[in-house]
Amino acid sequence: MTATYRAVVLARRPQGDPVPDDFAVVEMPVLPLSPGEFRTRNLFVSLDAGFRNWMNEGSGDAVLPAMPLGQPVMGLVLAEVSESRHLDYRPGERLMARFAWEEQSVSKGADFIARLPGTFRFSPSAYLGVLGDTGMSAWFGIEIGAPVRGETVLISAAGGAVGSIAGQLAKLAGARTVGIVGNEAKGLWLVDSLGYDAFVVRGVGNSLVSGIQRACPAGVDLYFDNVGGAILEAAITCMNECGRIVMCGAISGYGATTPQPGPANLFDIVLKQLKLQGFMTHMRHDRYPEVRAALAALLESGKLRNPEHMLHGIAAVPAAFADLFSGRNLGKTIVTL
Amino acid sequence: MTATYRAVVLARRPQGDPVPDDFAVVEMPVLPLSPGEFRTRNLFVSLDAGFRNWMNEGSGDAVLPAMPLGQPVMGLVLAEVSESRHLDYRPGERLMARFAWEEQSVSKGADFIARLPGTFRFSPSAYLGVLGDTGMSAWFGIEIGAPVRGETVLISAAGGAVGSIAGQLAKLAGARTVGIVGNEAKGLWLVDSLGYDAFVVRGVGNSLVSGIQRACPAGVDLYFDNVGGAILEAAITCMNECGRIVMCGAISGYGATTPQPGPANLFDIVLKQLKLQGFMTHMRHDRYPEVRAALAALLESGKLRNPEHMLHGIAAVPAAFADLFSGRNLGKTIVTL
Repeated sequence: MTATYRAVVLARRPQGDPVPDDFAVVEMPVLPLSPGEFRTRNLFVSLDAGFRNWMNEGSGDAVLPAMPLGQPVMGLVLAEVSESRHLDYRPGERLMARFAWEEQSVSKGADFIARLPGTFRFSPSAYLGVLGDTGMSAWFGIEIGAPVRGETVLISAAGGAVGSIAGQLAKLAGARTVGIVGNEAKGLWLVDSLGYDAFVVRGVGNSLVSGIQRACPAGVDLYFDNVGGAILEAAITCMNECGRIVMCGAISGYGATTPQPGPANLFDIVLKQLKLQGFMTHMRHDRYPEVRAALAALLESGKLRNPEHMLHGIAAVPAAFADLFSGRNLGKTIVTL
Repeated sequence: MTATYRAVVLARRPQGDPVPDDFAVVEMPVLPLSPGEFRTRNLFVSLDAGFRNWMNEGSGDAVLPAMPLGQPVMGLVLAEVSESRHLDYRPGERLMARFAWEEQSVSKGADFIARLPGTFRFSPSAYLGVLGDTGMSAWFGIEIGAPVRGETVLISAAGGAVGSIAGQLAKLAGARTVGIVGNEAKGLWLVDSLGYDAFVVRGVGNSLVSGIQRACPAGVDLYFDNVGGAILEAAITCMNECGRIVMCGAISGYGATTPQPGPANLFDIVLKQLKLQGFMTHMRHDRYPEVRAALAALLESGKLRNPEHMLHGIAAVPAAFADLFSGRNLGKTIVTL
């Protein structure tokens, strides 16, 4: 009997927000390695809403190719080399790699891979969250937005993987930090556990604007946008003169099957002299070691918390990914294998 | 019989793009001056699309109050003091002032006023265009966008007062300059008279995108937005990675009676790591003297041209203002009185 392992494949292209049935858990045969290949045992799978972006037909771009149907879904994993016919990788080495949602991976070393230290000062899963892409996203966004003492920073998807770190970094910069969340419980968690000053429960139209205005009586100086759409529009309405908006993602748009109209109040960008800047964390690989060291120092000193939403077993992946879009997670979603 | 002068009043609030009948030319009585007042004879009226913004009910903001119905329309004029009971203003002095569309004005000196030099090296009308707000807008926009040699700069409303100067400044910075215009004749004028490298005639949807792509084979590095709306959307589609967009105005939105949805492709701001920055020329008064000197030096050296669309008599003002919105002007529209 051939040995097998389990992988999550893209069963069909999601329409709008992903649902668990867009994915299937399948058994894959363990094949012998060819020269130049190595095999990993994958320890943790990172779930990142941004990958939704490459699940559409023809969605390939400069960053990543579109994901093929029926193949394991591309994602970030923390892996340990279990067997190697590759000169640069030895069994026992731990890697953070853009492999796939699968229990084992085979690589030629050409994928995006970062080597992890031999000993860990933190749970190794931190390398997928606060010390991985999501922590980097939070760092780069706050660096670009550059909040200072006394300013008000508004963050959407504030309880998500990026927002939960970004809010803490803004607070460390001395800003008043306000999170937009999907429900009251998440808001209370932000305030109690992560030091957010206030929160706004996501609504629609004017109710969101007035909620933001109540939570930000001095207006918004920096808006850290993780969602786009109607929340971006409401935030623009609440921005102060010369405010900044950093655009890290647009979870509200990832699932759109047709293009969604943008905010109707873009002329406020002129009237209020706003600055908007988008950024792609993946495009800043050269700065990962430096930023990872800075974030690790904050973790060690206890100034930064690393909230993780842990689930167990590869079969948990499809629902956990779908849950990112309904905002059920508190912090970074990680599946342990 | 009382002496009178003529003024253009706001007869009704424009619906969408302004039409001549939104305004009326009325006779006003010449009243005696009170102490602390001075009177001007107005020599030139500057027509600026941006003032449309304050013609709506309740449109007052930090920059200007909403214009009242039945009163002379707020605007920029070049004026000569004709009579004064104000200690700081003497007959014969020339001013650039935010007065109104009228043959004479009376002021207490509290309005926005800049004194002009006693002798002119240029037509005094230049102080309303290239050396006035529109020249400043072009300068600040190009300064923020900071094009460099070899980059492609795309400018909308390129034949208008701001665009006709901005294109020349981008060219002086060494960039390839492409203008979006309403018709072929205007495009040819940009290339022949102002040194633009290419032009695109405004269309809708994909035809505009493909027009921009043809005119900008290396993509767009800087988009100087004077219009917003569908043209902004098309420009975003054509932007290069890490491109910049400066937002100077939004003529397409000034006339909107209901909020217009914004571009549907704002997620490109994230994917392409774009920077957008809006600015209000009026908020940068402190820099006018310095920038005016720099623009005057360029004019004197012959490196910058000052295209003016001159009309005559106060009765020409309503149609000339409406024409700004259909793009009939070539360069800065000035009415001589």
